[in-house]
Amino acid sequence: VLTYSFENIGSEYMYEHIYRCIREDILDGRIKAGEKLPSKRSFAKHLDVSLIVVENAYAQLKAEGYLYSVPKSGYYANSLEEIHVVPSSSSARALEETEAPSYFADFVTSAVESEMFPYAVWTRVMRNVIATEDEKKLLLESPAAGVLKLRMAIANHLYDFRGLAVDPNRIIVGAGTQFLYNILVQLLGREHIYAIEDPGYRRLGRIYESNNVELRPIPLDEYGLIVDALVDSGADIVHVMPSHQFPTGIVMPISRRYELLGWASQRSDRYIIEDDHDCEFRLMGKPIPTLQSVDTLERVIYINTFSRSLAPTFRISYMILPLHLMQRFEQRLGFYSCSVSNFEQFTLAKFIQDGHFERHINRMRSHYRAKRDLLIKELTTTLGSQIKVLKKESGLHFLLRFDAPMSDQYVVAQLKERGVCASCISEYYHEGFQNDSHTIVLNYSGVAREAIPRAVEALADVLMQR
Amino acid sequence: VLTYSFENIGSEYMYEHIYRCIREDILDGRIKAGEKLPSKRSFAKHLDVSLIVVENAYAQLKAEGYLYSVPKSGYYANSLEEIHVVPSSSSARALEETEAPSYFADFVTSAVESEMFPYAVWTRVMRNVIATEDEKKLLLESPAAGVLKLRMAIANHLYDFRGLAVDPNRIIVGAGTQFLYNILVQLLGREHIYAIEDPGYRRLGRIYESNNVELRPIPLDEYGLIVDALVDSGADIVHVMPSHQFPTGIVMPISRRYELLGWASQRSDRYIIEDDHDCEFRLMGKPIPTLQSVDTLERVIYINTFSRSLAPTFRISYMILPLHLMQRFEQRLGFYSCSVSNFEQFTLAKFIQDGHFERHINRMRSHYRAKRDLLIKELTTTLGSQIKVLKKESGLHFLLRFDAPMSDQYVVAQLKERGVCASCISEYYHEGFQNDSHTIVLNYSGVAREAIPRAVEALADVLMQR
Repeated sequence: VLTYSFENIGSEYMYEHIYRCIREDILDGRIKAGEKLPSKRSFAKHLDVSLIVVENAYAQLKAEGYLYSVPKSGYYANSLEEIHVVPSSSSARALEETEAPSYFADFVTSAVESEMFPYAVWTRVMRNVIATEDEKKLLLESPAAGVLKLRMAIANHLYDFRGLAVDPNRIIVGAGTQFLYNILVQLLGREHIYAIEDPGYRRLGRIYESNNVELRPIPLDEYGLIVDALVDSGADIVHVMPSHQFPTGIVMPISRRYELLGWASQRSDRYIIEDDHDCEFRLMGKPIPTLQSVDTLERVIYINTFSRSLAPTFRISYMILPLHLMQRFEQRLGFYSCSVSNFEQFTLAKFIQDGHFERHINRMRSHYRAKRDLLIKELTTTLGSQIKVLKKESGLHFLLRFDAPMSDQYVVAQLKERGVCASCISEYYHEGFQNDSHTIVLNYSGVAREAIPRAVEALADVLMQR
Repeated sequence: VLTYSFENIGSEYMYEHIYRCIREDILDGRIKAGEKLPSKRSFAKHLDVSLIVVENAYAQLKAEGYLYSVPKSGYYANSLEEIHVVPSSSSARALEETEAPSYFADFVTSAVESEMFPYAVWTRVMRNVIATEDEKKLLLESPAAGVLKLRMAIANHLYDFRGLAVDPNRIIVGAGTQFLYNILVQLLGREHIYAIEDPGYRRLGRIYESNNVELRPIPLDEYGLIVDALVDSGADIVHVMPSHQFPTGIVMPISRRYELLGWASQRSDRYIIEDDHDCEFRLMGKPIPTLQSVDTLERVIYINTFSRSLAPTFRISYMILPLHLMQRFEQRLGFYSCSVSNFEQFTLAKFIQDGHFERHINRMRSHYRAKRDLLIKELTTTLGSQIKVLKKESGLHFLLRFDAPMSDQYVVAQLKERGVCASCISEYYHEGFQNDSHTIVLNYSGVAREAIPRAVEALADVLMQR
């Protein structure tokens, strides 16, 4: 067992002293690469120090790459080469989060194929922004609602692309829709009851719950959220995805939209949060007007994100508020700084203004369309009458109804064993798993074309019990 | 008055039609540059459409730069040159937020001098990151706590710079401390009573209030937060700035720190949030250990930001949680995505790892020290026995006590008239303005050296009633 004297400790903390002693022993070769260190508990007892002292020393050694840890086993010395040559990556390896199981085809996460992202253009635009924008402006704290240039670029984009006439002064930019939901709760009030679509994104419910608001999951019929159920729920605020509901893929027809607006019009504290998150990827048909654009009573809050249209790493989203809410925001929450850096806001503004965003969207649309068509062709060729493809007109996911006498959970588990990650509609209910839906949700944005034939093979394997 | 027929409206929305008609009239010169448009109300009445239709049309025309608006007057047509040549900037001008009054010396906002920011290095590092990092990783949604590389770089920096041994696995990265406070309320619970220092950052209180938590402002004595008052308040969670309190500049002595830790140790749901926001700029003397480093009972949450050490636009902050809170975070809030993009996280990680951050801090320290010394020298030379400089040892602000028989508000107003923005301690109380403090807070980070003599002149003008 290692023994270190505290005689020469001087002004060091104890953990610091132990950290330094062990480091020297590793550097001088007294502790060899791969050698196991004493357990924290026994070492602390042996040195007669408290456990936290040893914990801190080990944590530091680990952070700097001198040690690595093996779960349920303990700490080991790293090899010197690794420490000297690539200290950061060696410690990164030691500390890496437990690797997620890897699938060759992942139909669940909303990743994008990295080859498709226009890195070169993005960095060129960013360089250009740094060279041309007023340096002072770039470094300042961004105003609560975001940089005006970006809000104007978004307004122009919405007009060109979505036919929405939006005053940039009613747009608020924030670091992701999750962040904006947090702001919305503060703006609209925690005393209200919030309603969400059921099934829907489970994260959404968790965000509202973490904000301690009362939550009502509202069932859907074939046209989307059932307004009668909403009335009965007693909710004041409802969160909907009318342009492409997740996971059901329902596009809410105009009649239901008016019904919903009618509900909102009945009380002045009712609001509809319209989440339009993958409207850019409507692949067929004429889009139905957004709720926001037919809202004459200032009851709709429109929300959208660039995480979907650019890449998940971009934490840039925005919402459009009715005038009275924008005024309330400025009054009550205007003290916040915008949560996105000016660098990224100005870069995105220029990226949109110079037409790169539209070109990117168009490129992605044809890419996605081709991918979807290939996937559907392969599915129908291979599985034929065993399956039915549903809700394929809009957005980046569609549904696969199957007839086989298997439970949803069995199908998902069997697919995972074959390297395919997928989910069923039954998993997206607020209260947890519901009755078998026999409906797989295929979100194909992050799946490479090359992986499609093999993924369809796996589906056939499972569903046709081959 | 303009009259447009709706005969050829086709499938357009009404606002769209009006927008297009006006645009054509401007482009064809039928509406001249600078010409005033009819008021929204009268125009709506004239066309027999609802007000919102005209509002939308005007907003769109304004967003695209065809119109500009003059507050309390109305809408005017822009000149064609401006629209054609620089559509975005012309509309930017029309829409620009009401300009904040400009001061030649601003001792209130925590801006930095833009010349001091290492743009070239930052962009080089970013290019390098894009060229060398795994592209897939760069585009993915960042894990809830942030990218591991950045958390390791922060741990290393804290060790080298602050002597803190921190496990990177207990660090959470987020888009600004404001965002992290929001997360903390969700983590610690809204049922607790939160205490803040009074006087202190007023924004802090507003954030907690927007989160609907009960708030208790706690008075300070010369050693900082009064622990007896904290006990009496019934609060469970206290937010302190021990290394350099704002605005009082108090550095909490070690005895008071232990007293505070003692308070926290008495109940398992008590926590101290230690805000260390300008520790990098302690300019003299040996730093006192952070509360976090002497906390053996897992009661301290350490929080710090790069908005102060790099520039306000960087919305990158972090907190260090005790292990059990980190586990709770993963369990309850792990569904969140990190609110900072991977681009910025990887860039900052490399910026720190390659030593640029430390070099930048060192450069800024000597820059700030020289600036502070100059400011103090000018103050004492010019104002002599009229003033007393206090709390100048740490951080980026110090205090100026004056003897003149004037109210704080008078002094601040007079300074503003002379182009100097400053504040007095009396403005930072939670319940609003308190008794005259006769103490000006001079936050000098964003004031250029060249501006100092003139700023001191203005101070002398006001305080010596010249």
